[in-house]
Amino acid sequence: MSFSPLIRQLIDALRTLPGVGQKTAQRMALQLLERDRSGGSRLALALTQAMEGVGHCRLCRTLTEDDLCPQCADMRRDDTLLCVVEGPMDVYAVEQTGYRGRYFVLKGHLSPLDGLGPEAIGIPQLMTRIAEQGTFAEVILATNPTVEGEATAHYIAQLLSNKGLIASRIAHGVPLGGELELVDGGTLAHSFSGRRPITL
Amino acid sequence: MSFSPLIRQLIDALRTLPGVGQKTAQRMALQLLERDRSGGSRLALALTQAMEGVGHCRLCRTLTEDDLCPQCADMRRDDTLLCVVEGPMDVYAVEQTGYRGRYFVLKGHLSPLDGLGPEAIGIPQLMTRIAEQGTFAEVILATNPTVEGEATAHYIAQLLSNKGLIASRIAHGVPLGGELELVDGGTLAHSFSGRRPITL
Repeated sequence: MSFSPLIRQLIDALRTLPGVGQKTAQRMALQLLERDRSGGSRLALALTQAMEGVGHCRLCRTLTEDDLCPQCADMRRDDTLLCVVEGPMDVYAVEQTGYRGRYFVLKGHLSPLDGLGPEAIGIPQLMTRIAEQGTFAEVILATNPTVEGEATAHYIAQLLSNKGLIASRIAHGVPLGGELELVDGGTLAHSFSGRRPITL
Repeated sequence: MSFSPLIRQLIDALRTLPGVGQKTAQRMALQLLERDRSGGSRLALALTQAMEGVGHCRLCRTLTEDDLCPQCADMRRDDTLLCVVEGPMDVYAVEQTGYRGRYFVLKGHLSPLDGLGPEAIGIPQLMTRIAEQGTFAEVILATNPTVEGEATAHYIAQLLSNKGLIASRIAHGVPLGGELELVDGGTLAHSFSGRRPITL
């Protein structure tokens, strides 16, 4: 197995992409070189422009090259609702639900073992954002349903409890289209404790 | 779902990679932007250098930025053996077998329906290469075990039959580690017709 240096360098660089191992990187590199040079050059340009140009939104801290992201710049959204998520990808997931309030993007979740305290993930900036905006009535904590995500949600809820704001947590339960027998016990327990009366 | 323009452009560009759809491209783009900007810039540089710098080997026509690829430049390889494959990726697959002869890389296989005749895939250049080198005794046809690959191998074998060269085809049969009951009938038929006496 001996690739020429430039091809080897390209394969190594492609492996920095998440989910791309040696074989996939080889296939990508040779495919681009054999069949789609213009696509490869376009990708190089897009990467350069994005890596140099994209920063963070001044208000919600999601990724954008502008001062404000499209969600924060949209004047028609509900200024009484704030949704707190762990990362930019979560914003796009929540957008699919039809939610049209505001966002705040943390830098991940609290993780004391990794040395990630409230400052590291941007909780002080979240509290500043809430205080400066002054219009939020409810803060929806949409961190991941993991131990760290739950801890992060609880930490923020405690900070908010003195400020007269409703702090809510997204519901945990059985996902649509699943089968009860395949759902783990913890999730099923959540779906029981979170049960609601059927309104006819 | 509204990404800012630079991020959208990056996601679209990432989708030119083989096997990368919308979701994977989003994950790749946001991961690079959030956690690995230097990796993204390195990838952009590697892409630019490879797309502009990599051409084809003068002798075997595989991908390389040099005049000769590492396989053709290696003086210690066997000049009596020539292995014909459909693409550069196949060279690296065949190298794993321990084969240490020479290579010739076609541009795919004969496909009359797609307008790909002998000229389009480089068969005239293969014949020129064989004539100019003058040392080959055997040409191993290692095109893919598909209908088109077989047709391509037969076409080349016919051209070679007048030139006093041995044209051989790689063996088809049951792959190692498989189970007979899972092998298709065509493959099993090949493994029967290609059976060999056991030498003790």
